[in-house]
Amino acid sequence: MTEQQSSAASGIVLGANQYGKAEVRVVKVTRDTARHEIDDLNVTSQLRGDFSAAHLAGDNAHVVPTDTQKNTIFAFARDGIGSPEAFLLRLADHFTGSFDWVTGGRWEAEKFAWQRIVAHGEPHDHSFVRSGQEVRTALVVVEGAGGGVGGTGGTGGGGGDRTRHVLAGLKELTVLKTTESGFEGYPRDRYTTLPETRDRILATDVSARWLYRGAGVDAGFDYDAAYDSVRGLLLETFTEGYSAALQTTLFDMGRRVLERHDEIAEIRLSMPNKHHFVVDLSPFGLDNPNEVFYAADRPYGLIEAAVVREGVDSPAAAWEAVAGFC
Amino acid sequence: MTEQQSSAASGIVLGANQYGKAEVRVVKVTRDTARHEIDDLNVTSQLRGDFSAAHLAGDNAHVVPTDTQKNTIFAFARDGIGSPEAFLLRLADHFTGSFDWVTGGRWEAEKFAWQRIVAHGEPHDHSFVRSGQEVRTALVVVEGAGGGVGGTGGTGGGGGDRTRHVLAGLKELTVLKTTESGFEGYPRDRYTTLPETRDRILATDVSARWLYRGAGVDAGFDYDAAYDSVRGLLLETFTEGYSAALQTTLFDMGRRVLERHDEIAEIRLSMPNKHHFVVDLSPFGLDNPNEVFYAADRPYGLIEAAVVREGVDSPAAAWEAVAGFC
Amino acid sequence: MTEQQSSAASGIVLGANQYGKAEVRVVKVTRDTARHEIDDLNVTSQLRGDFSAAHLAGDNAHVVPTDTQKNTIFAFARDGIGSPEAFLLRLADHFTGSFDWVTGGRWEAEKFAWQRIVAHGEPHDHSFVRSGQEVRTALVVVEGAGGGVGGTGGTGGGGGDRTRHVLAGLKELTVLKTTESGFEGYPRDRYTTLPETRDRILATDVSARWLYRGAGVDAGFDYDAAYDSVRGLLLETFTEGYSAALQTTLFDMGRRVLERHDEIAEIRLSMPNKHHFVVDLSPFGLDNPNEVFYAADRPYGLIEAAVVREGVDSPAAAWEAVAGFC
Amino acid sequence: MTEQQSSAASGIVLGANQYGKAEVRVVKVTRDTARHEIDDLNVTSQLRGDFSAAHLAGDNAHVVPTDTQKNTIFAFARDGIGSPEAFLLRLADHFTGSFDWVTGGRWEAEKFAWQRIVAHGEPHDHSFVRSGQEVRTALVVVEGAGGGVGGTGGTGGGGGDRTRHVLAGLKELTVLKTTESGFEGYPRDRYTTLPETRDRILATDVSARWLYRGAGVDAGFDYDAAYDSVRGLLLETFTEGYSAALQTTLFDMGRRVLERHDEIAEIRLSMPNKHHFVVDLSPFGLDNPNEVFYAADRPYGLIEAAVVREGVDSPAAAWEAVAGFC
Repeated sequence: MTEQQSSAASGIVLGANQYGKAEVRVVKVTRDTARHEIDDLNVTSQLRGDFSAAHLAGDNAHVVPTDTQKNTIFAFARDGIGSPEAFLLRLADHFTGSFDWVTGGRWEAEKFAWQRIVAHGEPHDHSFVRSGQEVRTALVVVEGAGGGVGGTGGTGGGGGDRTRHVLAGLKELTVLKTTESGFEGYPRDRYTTLPETRDRILATDVSARWLYRGAGVDAGFDYDAAYDSVRGLLLETFTEGYSAALQTTLFDMGRRVLERHDEIAEIRLSMPNKHHFVVDLSPFGLDNPNEVFYAADRPYGLIEAAVVREGVDSPAAAWEAVAGFC
Repeated sequence: MTEQQSSAASGIVLGANQYGKAEVRVVKVTRDTARHEIDDLNVTSQLRGDFSAAHLAGDNAHVVPTDTQKNTIFAFARDGIGSPEAFLLRLADHFTGSFDWVTGGRWEAEKFAWQRIVAHGEPHDHSFVRSGQEVRTALVVVEGAGGGVGGTGGTGGGGGDRTRHVLAGLKELTVLKTTESGFEGYPRDRYTTLPETRDRILATDVSARWLYRGAGVDAGFDYDAAYDSVRGLLLETFTEGYSAALQTTLFDMGRRVLERHDEIAEIRLSMPNKHHFVVDLSPFGLDNPNEVFYAADRPYGLIEAAVVREGVDSPAAAWEAVAGFC
Repeated sequence: MTEQQSSAASGIVLGANQYGKAEVRVVKVTRDTARHEIDDLNVTSQLRGDFSAAHLAGDNAHVVPTDTQKNTIFAFARDGIGSPEAFLLRLADHFTGSFDWVTGGRWEAEKFAWQRIVAHGEPHDHSFVRSGQEVRTALVVVEGAGGGVGGTGGTGGGGGDRTRHVLAGLKELTVLKTTESGFEGYPRDRYTTLPETRDRILATDVSARWLYRGAGVDAGFDYDAAYDSVRGLLLETFTEGYSAALQTTLFDMGRRVLERHDEIAEIRLSMPNKHHFVVDLSPFGLDNPNEVFYAADRPYGLIEAAVVREGVDSPAAAWEAVAGFC
Repeated sequence: MTEQQSSAASGIVLGANQYGKAEVRVVKVTRDTARHEIDDLNVTSQLRGDFSAAHLAGDNAHVVPTDTQKNTIFAFARDGIGSPEAFLLRLADHFTGSFDWVTGGRWEAEKFAWQRIVAHGEPHDHSFVRSGQEVRTALVVVEGAGGGVGGTGGTGGGGGDRTRHVLAGLKELTVLKTTESGFEGYPRDRYTTLPETRDRILATDVSARWLYRGAGVDAGFDYDAAYDSVRGLLLETFTEGYSAALQTTLFDMGRRVLERHDEIAEIRLSMPNKHHFVVDLSPFGLDNPNEVFYAADRPYGLIEAAVVREGVDSPAAAWEAVAGFC
């Protein structure tokens, strides 16, 4: 965010601000051969810098139109999209490099996955079915001069003393264990009625964001391979062992990712505890040995934590840009 | 629906009516061995019959509580769920068989698919990830005596001269072809501005409902195998050949299903035309040979049709119970 | 719906079908004076008729593009929108009157209400805040020759022996009574655990559709005044007396509307029972005399009924076009 | 957020974390007289403090169950809810005061408004219709010792050297001006195609969060009156004058609130620019003098800014807890 800007007699001034175009749905088809490829993104571009005249005086001389930001996204897609992180870095460098007063910003993408339809025994050349599993997310934050906090990204391509942060992530990855989960040994007070259990369903929608460092902050890095690996590690760790609390499982998942990926500085996870209650069938003369459950909507538990490396700072500018994480 | 019931001096009377419990989220874990299985359904139960006293006089003597309907769903799950169609048939037979005044009803389910998480190279015994692809749907409609229309299901297990209809289906199966689709030769009037094309993206969310006949209206029928087959045929046919209109593709998909499945009387498809517009990049000095698209939300085309067998009637009672199909 | 059309050797033929453009978001500002008016609609146009060549042979000679349907909606809005029912009748007459093979169709609208912002003590001339209360709905269905059932609308403006049906409605009108509601005297079976009550919260989202007859099927009818009246009657009746069951309340609401509006042939209501459960506070040493409730999401009761006039037929073509009503 | 906690040989440690119960839907009816009152909230409680043992060792001795947090919300509602801010302060003081290791947390509420149904000319005693207009929001953040930043709230009731932050807000307040809005004088580059305009529709969904200071951080403060005033000022300012950019309108709205409310330290606004495009009707031989618009869904502009007081710090702990604001 930018500093406080130009003041009025009242002492009421403009604070942090950003603006841009949100949710540009761009689809890129690569058709160099008969075997087409598809990239399907939802891109948001938000600029930060000196926009005080627009706020205070209705002077738009600095306001790069949000429509122009949209056009730029489509135009840049003409050369190919590649990984969402690399695409966002290109956009970030363009905007911070093209307009003096744009000192930073926030570029975000959702990526929707498509699989080839298997027809007559073969994956089809140009027909796809959307995989509804998780949504991949990417975020690039550029801090301008004076942004302060020592960043993860060194000085970027955009010029000057800017810092670029690259966060990858996923959301809506819904997982469930039918056993090997419990919850015991918690403190009790006047309001505690929950019974202890050593066998329950554990279900959650995994949301994760991880911050790259070093080589991971470069458009040449293989973000797609890293994504596939992190996704696999999160899933695999979820399956392992007995879960004494969702907190433990969350931490184990994050730790595994950091252990295997030196280029990741930190990972944050937000995981609802999607309650599955054992239904009391005894009024109907039936037992229920953890077989029949009611899947509740609300309320739900919500467990959130960062798994970090000792001595490695968390850049505030990067994490503030991520909505809904602790 | 039931007939008009008990009248008032005003000539204003009760018409068709039904009631029940909607969206019971039941999860059944089968844990006979270490390799657990999971069934995850969203079940709705609605009864039809003689409920005029409740409407006209506040007399609930016939109103089987919706809470009881919910309890019954959980209790029946204790014995296992199996295919959603078979589960709904059990519920239908129970309610129409247990209460004289319940002459019919409507039982519906959504089924959410889970895949085993692959961990350390193997599908895990009790850890699952939800497949977000399509949602499977099932519907059982029971017409009571006097319901009139000759039904698909013969006399059911519930007793008397009732007719049971079984519809299977799916929704939210999102598919896309990057080429081999066009739209030409349409009529023009004062309001026509659309250019013709022989190469466009074709994208849709397939919603389908198919009605079983004969052996397909029996809890012993292998609904799961039929579902997998129909799903595969719909996907495969979507990939084939050049699409001159979404109507043609829709009809071909339905016809293929009927050709391969004698036990299916009729299939109805509802398919939005999810527009992907080629972005005009010429103002930026760029060409765009069908590579960069804007994926629009609204408005969208909407193509709906039934594919039927000559001489085989469509039972109104079955299809009226399906919301949102033509 | 149209009849079965042109067949193949296989005996697999096209059944009922319709197509069009869905969810055209049109906003019309009337600015003849400094006091602007705003109409905000979401319009869907679907044509029925002879479209077999498109389905069977990829011949689009009859396929009025959905894009043209969209353009027509915007063009017709240029002359003003007026009530949504009158606007849909204009569209219906246009399409059925302009193309020989378009014998009927389905035109639907949602109307979003805006209120003037009160600024400095006065309703503002051109600034509005959206009322999020209910959404008004309108539907016009035209049955072509051979559509059979004697309709509500006589012969329409579109020509020939067509029948026009006009349905008005509303949805998402959320109401709640904190007392004067109970549920007793219901049948019990093995699965019944619900306790009886004479004091509970009654909450529902009212969805209603009513069918006009006679003078009510004419663009000159004052649909706006009728809408306001019906909405008021539904709300007022909801408040009255003790509710012995949601069924009773629903019927009373519908009856009141028919009693006061001769031009309405029939009304159908779909009302979820949105459960508010009294929370058991006794483990915390507290009583709870119906003061603290948990508002549940799912499952919910679902009560649906038609309130009709003795001896007046329900035209199937009209009601089939309404998704999700019994 | 809490500091980094207990480490492993790997140097991978727990960072900031919080957990709790989300979206507890509590409805409180006050029925001391025949004229009932209703409070309808969606409450989330999240605790911060020393929970490292749960994450690192599966030891739940510090994990106050999320179920207990839910129970506490219901139990506290028994004494009445009052303003959402005061209710959250009670919860915050309870949790931070009851468990030594709970040093802070985040308590949030949505409040849904209900209006009395007017029946037979009078507002009804116990029947309500939900106002769908905006949703009121409230948030209390408690920073524990060592949380650092000098807070807005002084030391709270919970004990020790804690700082309590109170934020009020609203979301989904949809407003629209049919004229007196334009966008001109912006910079142009290769990707700019937007035409300038001095007359367009300006529409947005206002989201606002404001932070109280001084007397505003006390359960005795009249949060309801302040809310009504701020809401009114936001709406009124939106109507005023010519809008040269949404940025200008946003800043004016925020400034007005700070000018009138000394007890508010800062306000942040997030306002999408909901595009209404003038439809080109010239192909149909029609003019369109800003009368017929297409209301687009995506993409949309997104304008976000803080309006602050010179020399008054923004406490990071407060604003980090608000998802989706810049």
